[in-house]
Amino acid sequence: MPKTMLFLPTGFEETEAITTVDILRRGDVCVHTVSITDEIMVLGSHDILIKADKLFKEVEEDYSYDMIILPGGPGTKNYFEHPDFLNLVKKYNDNGKQIGAICAAPTVIAKLGILNSKKAVCYPTCENEISQAIITCNNVETDTNITTSKGPGTTVHFAFRLLEILIGTENAEKVKEKFIAQI
Amino acid sequence: MPKTMLFLPTGFEETEAITTVDILRRGDVCVHTVSITDEIMVLGSHDILIKADKLFKEVEEDYSYDMIILPGGPGTKNYFEHPDFLNLVKKYNDNGKQIGAICAAPTVIAKLGILNSKKAVCYPTCENEISQAIITCNNVETDTNITTSKGPGTTVHFAFRLLEILIGTENAEKVKEKFIAQI
Repeated sequence: MPKTMLFLPTGFEETEAITTVDILRRGDVCVHTVSITDEIMVLGSHDILIKADKLFKEVEEDYSYDMIILPGGPGTKNYFEHPDFLNLVKKYNDNGKQIGAICAAPTVIAKLGILNSKKAVCYPTCENEISQAIITCNNVETDTNITTSKGPGTTVHFAFRLLEILIGTENAEKVKEKFIAQI
Repeated sequence: MPKTMLFLPTGFEETEAITTVDILRRGDVCVHTVSITDEIMVLGSHDILIKADKLFKEVEEDYSYDMIILPGGPGTKNYFEHPDFLNLVKKYNDNGKQIGAICAAPTVIAKLGILNSKKAVCYPTCENEISQAIITCNNVETDTNITTSKGPGTTVHFAFRLLEILIGTENAEKVKEKFIAQI
């Protein structure tokens, strides 16, 4: 079973986080939600309080995950203020692991140099912060080990792209048929 | 500010619940999530634990809301086992209040007679349970005070329809532009 972690800073965008977890778990992917605050309960940007599966300190030296995922939203600023988190993301990239980032979160990996000369997308108002990337017009973009997406309204595209990467297109398609109620 | 409540039974479908709350709150609609278990923490169908805003007992005699919303998922069966909840839904309908139901949840309002001869949709495998309705092919359907939708993949359509009803098409459109990152 592929193993992923999805980070939850205070102010995470709920649709981007929760729909991604929902879709990946439908595909039998292991997803650990990881609080990058000091608390296991994390408040989203629309006042939804959810319980993370793990605290950051439990995973900060764990490089066994196949993919790490950064939802966006106003909470994106909190990624920048967590040096140990940024170090983890950088090491995952150095190890060639898969990274997914959506909305404002691609600015975090851009700051780490991870998007340099890579095709990528982000929330339209953040494009000046990923200027090292080759910005495209797609709802979701994958270049080598990096998948990025535009915002809450493209979360379903983002999550299914991640699922395809993790379990293959054919298996992901079966999950998609049920999710979009085309059965 | 329009006032709504969205119910959370154990096993609620997370995308259907959370994306709806997210979109309505973006439109400055008051949304209270209401646990219909005995606990304030409610577990969704994909193991996401969220804290509801209220317990059912706090709202069971409160008819001041403009709209009530029933997400679906495997937790739909728990609506049927809660007579006081079913009574509340029936009274809201008797008072002509707005009701939204998605995925398997339209079967609950169908059982109460609320969908009789109304245009409606639901998750495809549940259609035999809403046979009193006029089932259409749309992703979301509104007939008088009842709005129904097909499943997790149509949640964004469902939530924006509810938002249009609550704050008007023009205001909802402004929220939509930001959500779908077309700005």
